Parts: sequence; structure tokens; C-alpha cells
Amino acid sequence: MHHEKGLLIVLSGPSGVGKGTVRKEIFSQDDTKFEYSISMTTRKPREGEVHGMDYFFHSREEFEQLIEEEKLLEYAEYVGNYYGTPVDYVRQTMDEGKDVFLEIEVEGARQVREKFPEALFIFLAPPSLSELENRIIGRGTETKELIENRMKEARKELIMMDLYDYVVENDHVESAVQKIKSIVVAEHCKRERIQGRYKKMLEAE
Amino acid sequence: MHHEKGLLIVLSGPSGVGKGTVRKEIFSQDDTKFEYSISMTTRKPREGEVHGMDYFFHSREEFEQLIEEEKLLEYAEYVGNYYGTPVDYVRQTMDEGKDVFLEIEVEGARQVREKFPEALFIFLAPPSLSELENRIIGRGTETKELIENRMKEARKELIMMDLYDYVVENDHVESAVQKIKSIVVAEHCKRERIQGRYKKMLEAE
Repeated sequence: MHHEKGLLIVLSGPSGVGKGTVRKEIFSQDDTKFEYSISMTTRKPREGEVHGMDYFFHSREEFEQLIEEEKLLEYAEYVGNYYGTPVDYVRQTMDEGKDVFLEIEVEGARQVREKFPEALFIFLAPPSLSELENRIIGRGTETKELIENRMKEARKELIMMDLYDYVVENDHVESAVQKIKSIVVAEHCKRERIQGRYKKMLEAE
Repeated sequence: MHHEKGLLIVLSGPSGVGKGTVRKEIFSQDDTKFEYSISMTTRKPREGEVHGMDYFFHSREEFEQLIEEEKLLEYAEYVGNYYGTPVDYVRQTMDEGKDVFLEIEVEGARQVREKFPEALFIFLAPPSLSELENRIIGRGTETKELIENRMKEARKELIMMDLYDYVVENDHVESAVQKIKSIVVAEHCKRERIQGRYKKMLEAE
């Protein structure tokens, strides 16, 4: 009757951290209850890629018209092609009470945050912290440069994290997947959320 | 090296909601990584109960001395017997980087909140929300009094929840247990927590 609006879950993180692999593993699991928001792109389909499954494939003109009409929740251009998230699917699915999952670049996440500050932002981090710890511990066997480079990277990651609610280290895909699923379960148990449902129901009477 | 301090997890909720059953199920599972803080009591051991396992059994004099010495994180008197949580075990275990789990009454949770506002407070609720929804939906078949009683209870629960971070409905024990474990996993992934570890490590260099 008073169904709760779905969550918007945003998984992002530095390039090359393995966001796509983690996302694919999440959606290969039968008990995953969130809906994957398929991205739109102007790049040509690769062999085996299916429109409406891997991506929505569109022309540059169509894509630019959607930008114009503000039909994209976020978008960016990479190597001459546009990539973006159609906003209608996201809103509609959330309104149906289903959680929507986006796997996008850091710049896209920044755009989503402006439009949906209440979304759940998860930063997928390289297993840098534990690696760095090991390097510092094993100091004798590591060059000074290697440690310093790693520390420089860690400082950058530290700043990128600022906009996120949660940080999941991608040390093992399965462990990262379980953490992400746990975060979503916990989010649904937040007191404000459940209390809100109670209140609505009692007031409706 | 810079090991993170453990969490203090407090499970509470109205009498009779099944806190003990949920707690026992949590600690019967091999993958549970938190430590159960055994309560202290002045009541006599029941058959089969073991000191240091089910409870720490103490005399009234000993218990009152511990109250005097502020050695209890929380305590209360029920039916002529004291029940309480020894604070030393809690602090020491957290300092070792392990999560400590308390299963206590609502009044005890209030006391803990004053001393450890940073603890994780989980309210175990009767499956009242969905029950109430069903009753309202099935209005024709339920008496007005029954629905009104349930609504009165729901209003009380709503107020009790105020001090908690999360609410878990105890509809099925296993599902409640999984939610509680997910909340703890999510808590460890909170950005502030992980960023804090990074910062400490980088500053230490």
C-alpha cells in the first residue's frame, strides 16, 4: 500500500579499479534484488553486444538531443564517444519501489550527486590500503620510490572519496560484492527510513 | 600496525521481541566475527547454566560494589535481581580491534548511549509494520479494537526507536540475523572510518 521508494545506488571509483567486473558479478547472482540501469552510448556495438542489454546504442545526434532535453542523469565523453544514463528509467524504477544500480565514472557520480544527493554513493577502491601497509611493514625489501608513489596515489584516492558514503576495497571480487550487498541491506534498515514508513501508515489512518 | 578499534554493537528492543533468540542464532554461526559480551547477574544459575558462559554469577554485595566502582557499562534490576554489563571486558575487547556485541534491555541501551554515543544501536522490532499493514488491508475481517490496539503499540515502538541507528524487524530469525550482520559489515565500510585509517597511515609517515 504505502510502498517505499527504491534506492539509487551509485558504484564508482578510479579507472581500472574493476567496477565492471564487480557489477557483472553482482548481476550474475540470483539473489541480487536491484535493477541495473543500462547505459546509453554512441560507440558502435562490439561483436555479441545487444542493444538494451549491454548498452542502448544511439547516434550522436540522438544523444545530443537527449542532453539538450535534460533526459540524462549524467553523461561524459570518452575517446570521442558519449556515455550516459537515461534519467526516465531511473526515476520510474525507483518509483516502482525497486533499487536502481549505476556503475559509472567518477565524473558521472559527481553529476548524480548534484541531482540525487540522497542516493547511496559507494567508492570502489584499489586494495591500496592493505598493500600500502604491507609495503611500509616490508620496508627493507621495497624501494623508497615505490612506497612514495603508492603514497601519492593513496593521497589522491583519499580526496576522491570525499563525495562518497561508503568505501569498499576491491581486494577480492566476491568479498567486494558481498560488502556492496550488505551496504544496501543496511541502508534499508536505517531508522529514519523505517520510522518514516510507520509514521506515514499511522497518519494515513 | 594501525589497527582499527572494534565497534560496540547494541541489540535491544521491546520485551518479548526475541532478542535472545536472535543473539543465540548469531553466535551459533561460524562466520560471526563479533565477540559476545556476557552479562553479569545476581540471580541463581538455572540448571545447565555455566558461569562465564551464560552469565557471570555474582552475589548482590559484589554487584553493588561494582556499581559503586562504576565498573558497569549499564545495569538494571528485574524481579529482584541485578543484570549488567562489565565495562572492562567491553573496552579491552574493542581496544584489541574486535567488535563487541551486547544484547540488552531498552533501559540498558539508553545508559550505553550516554557513555558510548558512537556505538551502533540496533532496534529489534516485532513484525508489526507488515502485520499492521495486513490488518488494515484485511479490515473487514479484523475488529476495530484489534487494529486500534496494534496502532497504539506501533506508536509506542515508534517513539522507542528514536535512540537507534537501525531498525530490524524480527519477522524471521534468520532474516533478522542476516540484516544485523549486514549492518555491521556496512558500518565497517563507512567512508569516514576508512578515510580515517588512510589519513592516520599517511600522517604517520
